[in-house]
Amino acid sequence: MASTTFDYAPLFKPGLPAPAVRWTGLAKYNFIGGNNDAAQVPVDGLIAASTAVLKREGHALATYGLAHGPQGYRPLRDFLAQKLKRDAAIACSADDILITSGSLQVIDLVNGVFLTRGDTAIIEQECYQGSINRLTRLGVNTVGIPLDSDGMRMDLLSNALDDLKQRGGRAKYIYTIPTVQNPTGSIMPEVRRAELLKLSAAHSVPVFEDDCYADLIWDGKRPPAIYAMSQSGSVVHIGSFSKSIAPALRVGYIVAGWDVLSRALAIKTDAGSGALEQMVLAEYCAPHFASHISELSRGLRVKLDALMDALNEQFGTSAEFEEPPGGIFLWVKLPDTVDIVKLYQAALKAGVAINPGPDWSVNKERSRSRMRLCFGSPTLDEIREGVAVLAEVCRTEFGVPTRSANVTRAAARS
Amino acid sequence: MASTTFDYAPLFKPGLPAPAVRWTGLAKYNFIGGNNDAAQVPVDGLIAASTAVLKREGHALATYGLAHGPQGYRPLRDFLAQKLKRDAAIACSADDILITSGSLQVIDLVNGVFLTRGDTAIIEQECYQGSINRLTRLGVNTVGIPLDSDGMRMDLLSNALDDLKQRGGRAKYIYTIPTVQNPTGSIMPEVRRAELLKLSAAHSVPVFEDDCYADLIWDGKRPPAIYAMSQSGSVVHIGSFSKSIAPALRVGYIVAGWDVLSRALAIKTDAGSGALEQMVLAEYCAPHFASHISELSRGLRVKLDALMDALNEQFGTSAEFEEPPGGIFLWVKLPDTVDIVKLYQAALKAGVAINPGPDWSVNKERSRSRMRLCFGSPTLDEIREGVAVLAEVCRTEFGVPTRSANVTRAAARS
Repeated sequence: MASTTFDYAPLFKPGLPAPAVRWTGLAKYNFIGGNNDAAQVPVDGLIAASTAVLKREGHALATYGLAHGPQGYRPLRDFLAQKLKRDAAIACSADDILITSGSLQVIDLVNGVFLTRGDTAIIEQECYQGSINRLTRLGVNTVGIPLDSDGMRMDLLSNALDDLKQRGGRAKYIYTIPTVQNPTGSIMPEVRRAELLKLSAAHSVPVFEDDCYADLIWDGKRPPAIYAMSQSGSVVHIGSFSKSIAPALRVGYIVAGWDVLSRALAIKTDAGSGALEQMVLAEYCAPHFASHISELSRGLRVKLDALMDALNEQFGTSAEFEEPPGGIFLWVKLPDTVDIVKLYQAALKAGVAINPGPDWSVNKERSRSRMRLCFGSPTLDEIREGVAVLAEVCRTEFGVPTRSANVTRAAARS
Repeated sequence: MASTTFDYAPLFKPGLPAPAVRWTGLAKYNFIGGNNDAAQVPVDGLIAASTAVLKREGHALATYGLAHGPQGYRPLRDFLAQKLKRDAAIACSADDILITSGSLQVIDLVNGVFLTRGDTAIIEQECYQGSINRLTRLGVNTVGIPLDSDGMRMDLLSNALDDLKQRGGRAKYIYTIPTVQNPTGSIMPEVRRAELLKLSAAHSVPVFEDDCYADLIWDGKRPPAIYAMSQSGSVVHIGSFSKSIAPALRVGYIVAGWDVLSRALAIKTDAGSGALEQMVLAEYCAPHFASHISELSRGLRVKLDALMDALNEQFGTSAEFEEPPGGIFLWVKLPDTVDIVKLYQAALKAGVAINPGPDWSVNKERSRSRMRLCFGSPTLDEIREGVAVLAEVCRTEFGVPTRSANVTRAAARS
């Protein structure tokens, strides 16, 4: 096109976020984002599924939503109802499920149904960056509840709810990632889930349960979903195929009562989510999901081990972390002297991308020396090399870690 | 799930649209929606494309956006750049294109970049329902410019722009569907496009060009896109694969200068649009798009003829319409005595779905006896039968059309 001379600036809506910058590619050592293991995308299975379902139902693509209505492709909702029953003890039917364009659309829909500027939402102190950013952009006050190794602390949640009540307020929801918490990796035990529901009922504040990592658990064992444990329908449950099959497929879902679902549907004005991805997923997942997940988790577990080994080797005691029971990320604490945002910037120049802790927490001070490292996407070699580069950058910038035994030995030999 | 007893009502955001009602399926004779001809979905081609692209690049699905960045799958943007050059005389590169989840997401993004409550947008008096509804929901004032058989009338646009200026206002954009206008079917000639650009420049109001039906023109001839004719970058151009390939695939796009594109990208927080649909489209379209479109248009033309014949036969002179040069809909005027909203309701009960004119116009009085009939989806038999049922309902409700010659003859024979 001719270069733009038309002046759009005075026409832009006030308060827009900063314009995007041109995309320049991924870092060489990419420890960020919910990317998965490329080797484990079930390509042959997806080809077979795509061929079979297009042959059988491809002509239906001529009709919006395949004539299955705005809630999404019926066989995918049927599969989900079965899977959610088997894995998360959720008793629901296809009518209780709405398929969305990824779990980000679903978060936007739930926020769109409940939140307006000035509202309060309760979240976990360490929390998914995308959820924190959305609440900030909406002008919603967030109350972050600290976590322990069992997830959100109920004593502190209780205090926060009491506090709000005393000030005449009421949170719109309690957002939690109870099953492989992002970024801390914890799984909230069943007894704590029951406590959460009690507090939710006592304060009439619904639970917004984000279960998008729940399929990736090393031993395959998880408590029932909070949604499944509620007798009153006080829970909105969301999930995704991004972590279990592939993130570039944008397919997520919400399970909720009709009062919430009918509101979400009314503001989902996109004429349906992508049908081909729904068709292929349904066709592939019905026979293959469980075995695929089991294999995928084994592979991710190997990568986690490689990451923890590399951190131990390169950072020694300077890197503290708890081994997560599943997922694709590790939450790592470096010495207090490390300003993780500065490390992030320096590491990026050296080709290593990390998530700085303050982006994943509403307690910026507590997270200033913490980082999230995602291990799904890099190869085993990239994990080892990337952590070595990161340690070297950290050493140059902050003097820690001190040289590791191996490196010192290698240096002595030369 | 247990039946919901939790009371969500006090927690919903104020001002939400009415809750959705349960979907109950499509009408037997379905003359609404941008649905296409099921027989013409290129199923074999899509299977071959899907197999080839997944085999070659399927593992890339493990990375958000296939590692092609937030603007979308690069080969699809490359295809679009070529297609837009060939068909619409648009000189652009993949860098000027953003792939979206259907053209509805793209309309939401453009609106999100420009519009805030109380703004003014200029549109065509008869206009796509989805665009009108979005502006209403955003609290934007719409100024509808009447159309003639060459599209938006420039004398009246000029008056409207002058009017706004005199009142100290300025519209945020001039929205037009210049190439197979929805619902009237007109194609704006090149000379009028040039006039539009002059008015746009004189008033510093950009043009928002929606070209989503432009691929479906019987003789394949169309003027250059308004985007292509602008020297200043004063046009935002959008399009879709919904009409050319299949609407259940949710793939649209925007072509714009970086100042607008970078703003749209900043508010597109969905982690990319569905990758599998983009991959399959790129793989299929690069070799097959032109020949597919030509065949599809031939088939649609046959359906249009069937619809016009059926209207002539069943409604006689009671149905007035101009034969459109392309597209999937016919804009029909019934006698002034017909309240089209009442006809719509009665027809739906008889299994015939039509679009009542007032939904597709900002001039409710002028459109009160008009309807939009979509002919892409119903079969030839359904078109004939559906129009006959519609005529019978209309006769019962409003006394028009009077009995047609054929029916009278048939009655006389019995």
